[in-house]
Amino acid sequence: MTTCRNKLTGGALALAVTLAGAMTFPAWAQGAETAGGIIHDAEQDILQEQFGEQWAVQDEELQQTLDAMYEKYGKRPNIVHIMWDDNSFGEVGIPSLNKIRGFDTPSLNQMGKEGMTFTRMYTEPSCTPTRAALLTGRLAVRSGMHTVAFPPEGAGLPAEEVTIAEVLSEAGYSTALFGKGHQGDIEESFMHNQGFDEAQFSMYNQFPANFWHADGEAAGMSIGYTPEMTEKNYLVDQQFRPYGYIMDIEGEKGGLARETLPATIEDTLENYRALNKMHFEKSLDFIRRKANDDNPFFLAYWPNVYDVIRNDEEMTTSNGSAFAQNIERLDREIGTILAELEELGIAENTLVIAMADNGPFVEVVGAQYQVVFAGGKGDYREGGIRVAAFAEWKGVIEPETIMGDMITVHDLFTTFARLGDATQHIPRDRIIDGIDQTASFLLGDGQSRRDYYHVYTGPQHAATIKQQYKRVWVGGRAGLVKNDFFDLYQDPREMRGMMAQFLWAWGPFDQMKKRHEQMNAKYPFTPTRHGVPFEGIENLRPESIEYQQNVRRTMETGKN
Amino acid sequence: MTTCRNKLTGGALALAVTLAGAMTFPAWAQGAETAGGIIHDAEQDILQEQFGEQWAVQDEELQQTLDAMYEKYGKRPNIVHIMWDDNSFGEVGIPSLNKIRGFDTPSLNQMGKEGMTFTRMYTEPSCTPTRAALLTGRLAVRSGMHTVAFPPEGAGLPAEEVTIAEVLSEAGYSTALFGKGHQGDIEESFMHNQGFDEAQFSMYNQFPANFWHADGEAAGMSIGYTPEMTEKNYLVDQQFRPYGYIMDIEGEKGGLARETLPATIEDTLENYRALNKMHFEKSLDFIRRKANDDNPFFLAYWPNVYDVIRNDEEMTTSNGSAFAQNIERLDREIGTILAELEELGIAENTLVIAMADNGPFVEVVGAQYQVVFAGGKGDYREGGIRVAAFAEWKGVIEPETIMGDMITVHDLFTTFARLGDATQHIPRDRIIDGIDQTASFLLGDGQSRRDYYHVYTGPQHAATIKQQYKRVWVGGRAGLVKNDFFDLYQDPREMRGMMAQFLWAWGPFDQMKKRHEQMNAKYPFTPTRHGVPFEGIENLRPESIEYQQNVRRTMETGKN
Repeated sequence: MTTCRNKLTGGALALAVTLAGAMTFPAWAQGAETAGGIIHDAEQDILQEQFGEQWAVQDEELQQTLDAMYEKYGKRPNIVHIMWDDNSFGEVGIPSLNKIRGFDTPSLNQMGKEGMTFTRMYTEPSCTPTRAALLTGRLAVRSGMHTVAFPPEGAGLPAEEVTIAEVLSEAGYSTALFGKGHQGDIEESFMHNQGFDEAQFSMYNQFPANFWHADGEAAGMSIGYTPEMTEKNYLVDQQFRPYGYIMDIEGEKGGLARETLPATIEDTLENYRALNKMHFEKSLDFIRRKANDDNPFFLAYWPNVYDVIRNDEEMTTSNGSAFAQNIERLDREIGTILAELEELGIAENTLVIAMADNGPFVEVVGAQYQVVFAGGKGDYREGGIRVAAFAEWKGVIEPETIMGDMITVHDLFTTFARLGDATQHIPRDRIIDGIDQTASFLLGDGQSRRDYYHVYTGPQHAATIKQQYKRVWVGGRAGLVKNDFFDLYQDPREMRGMMAQFLWAWGPFDQMKKRHEQMNAKYPFTPTRHGVPFEGIENLRPESIEYQQNVRRTMETGKN
Repeated sequence: MTTCRNKLTGGALALAVTLAGAMTFPAWAQGAETAGGIIHDAEQDILQEQFGEQWAVQDEELQQTLDAMYEKYGKRPNIVHIMWDDNSFGEVGIPSLNKIRGFDTPSLNQMGKEGMTFTRMYTEPSCTPTRAALLTGRLAVRSGMHTVAFPPEGAGLPAEEVTIAEVLSEAGYSTALFGKGHQGDIEESFMHNQGFDEAQFSMYNQFPANFWHADGEAAGMSIGYTPEMTEKNYLVDQQFRPYGYIMDIEGEKGGLARETLPATIEDTLENYRALNKMHFEKSLDFIRRKANDDNPFFLAYWPNVYDVIRNDEEMTTSNGSAFAQNIERLDREIGTILAELEELGIAENTLVIAMADNGPFVEVVGAQYQVVFAGGKGDYREGGIRVAAFAEWKGVIEPETIMGDMITVHDLFTTFARLGDATQHIPRDRIIDGIDQTASFLLGDGQSRRDYYHVYTGPQHAATIKQQYKRVWVGGRAGLVKNDFFDLYQDPREMRGMMAQFLWAWGPFDQMKKRHEQMNAKYPFTPTRHGVPFEGIENLRPESIEYQQNVRRTMETGKN
């Protein structure tokens, strides 16, 4: 499509030949319309016009660096992507702010010192969309994954979406995901059916185990969710509550899934904690097994980070909340992973990214807190989408790099593909929002190729960010904007919406939105994919089959 | 009074003999009632009871360290105290948050790396009280300096207050203050009459120069303040506006003052900037002159940090505001001072503290911003009183120390005295709120001897902080508290006032307040000292004499 991307693809192709010999190219990777280039959103073309030539030159230099590493290590870099739930920018990885909140994150602080701290990493505003965005490199609204899934769901990530696991698999990577998938409960959405060689994951979030049953009550979080807690004179329908839902499954690429037993049958705190430990142990085990392979690996460790019950054996925080304990536990896990990579001698050929999936859930989980911005999970304000994020890559990322650049979770898809010499496996028949940010990782601050982000909440286009300016689309007044413009340097908390100062920006933002919508019309959003839940699980329990029947009934009702 | 403090005084006395030979002890330093000990607020006695013996042992060790340094350098440490206006915790000295606000503070960031970052340094909520608190070691309300002074004032710091400059002078220090004194316009309040060997300072704040006259208008900050801007048909009284007020004076200890000419006669931006530059240059010059003296020095550099006009020659910030430029300029000054100490070879015997005097003036100066807490200047919330603060002392303060301890600006008085072997010159006839925090500076995190702070706004006791808990006294409901309790770890922004969770704390906070009030009754607050402004200035202009007459008239009216 553009000089830069042609060059990039060219370089990547040349290397792919050297590396993989008889590499196959799927049909979607050769779309006539895109002439070999990746289709980005309209806004990127404008940057490409201004910087395409410069970036093309830079890309050749970057490729030389990557190739030199390939020669040194005999394989492309391993990638470890750690992503946890609901965390405010600032309260992890910055020692001074640790003290403000009364808990410590020494491992993330160390990552910041030895690597890169992102100050403007944008995600989508909640779990499911952010994970979909990382997996596909696309705004979650494009894959129908814009909304958080709860059981019974009967929906999930469509098979046609091409995930980073598929892309990297094509380039020879071993791939695994452990933890919170949250991509739905239909068979095609399962992580081992979406490109991961091995996966153990929850189809929903961790709230059922935390809030729905007896242990939730112990934490004072339940409002009488379990029938055992309530008088039953007026309880007629015995099937309304989704007993029999499945918390966690495991599977190997293309195979049948198995419910993780016995951990997920009983929603007890012990089982929940055992499950989380299992995800972590499997992640470590995967790293150990793959460390010395000829091929590199991609690991997504996405822990179910929090439970709502304070663990009195871990009295290490001044803060005292279960949330603070969870973050400290997560931090210890990250420290263990980093130490393991070091011990295995692969730290210098492994990129580790650690980040939150969205802002803190301030409206729901009292102990979570917004430290710097405003708002939280589910919110288009910075507090919902601008997250704690760190990267470490010994010898590659300059220590103590503080990134002021804008980068989004979608960019990681495209960047991981580039690093893995798998750019040619990125689909060319759809919009890929993720921009290749290899330059940022290799060269540091001030190298981002992105300066915009269209923010969606659910299926709604809620705001647009360009440079330091932000315009909110929801609300407003017909015919005249209200104070919907923000300067994110002067007003990072979005407290002082402005209008008069931004009259210059009204037209440019309108134009930008129009271009985005024209691209959306040309490449329509994939509707949310629905289906029967739990197909492809070989050890279904009777109550899960009953649960499944309930959803089938809904689907059939819809057909009448 | 207590074992600990007796020991401390004893140690200090012993050294004073060695050092100063025929040291004289003023009457107030030998009050019978206090038996040689410093009188602290009631709350400190409770800590003293619990830790007195332990602290006494520690104090002996600390004294050995200080004495070893004394032997090495032949004098007690130099102290450089830099304090500027109205700055949010977080936006200076923390690289990640620099990026959020769009300006850089590399020197303060470096201070944080090479020295100590305070995360819980409390000041008073505005300029005048904080400066009085540092000077006297006492809550500003005790010296009558609780309220910000504006011309015509006819008030100021009473002569009977004993300042840190007096205390350190007694121990042989050379002392100087350059910048914003803001301690009033009566002769006894002048900095060179309050213990400083040399001083050049503004008696008020910098707002007159910024807001009152033509240049203020240029920045859009004026609302027609100067008569030149307004039609005069209805202007009768020609004297109401305080023309002839004096912005800045200079003097030497005990001598007459001179108005700084011509810088302050005309309130132009150029003059204002020249004045600020003069304060900085004089500070540097003082350091150079005193670096190789036999005696140590104490320098207070308290810059008039901001003007409201953007300087288009300094386009170095992404933020773009004049405030951001001011902070970057301040940061460069701090860098220059640190480099100068290094070059002079005295960095290892010089403690440098850099801090804001209170939170950002968010209600008034639009470009100022609250980054982490809530509220700002004038506010008893954390955003008003919990400030950016850093310390550097090569070879003494462990690099990258992050202080989670509570410490207040009053403590610096007592700590500076201890470091300068001048504890014996601290008055024993009044309450000294400042606690000796030498242990924090020498031993690092977790060594504070304070866990409380009674917060005053003006003359009003607004809130009390104890440990991580805070109770707000203003407002409330008679007979029953409302949601006036805060947990500062779980809720650093004071967004979620609580009551039920703090029923345990009601009684303890009530008791604490009572003890404080009993001490206040025993040692009453000094009323605000009034007098004729500008006496003791030898080069009074005719319009300043007229201005002076106006205030005299008010005083006489009061006598009728």
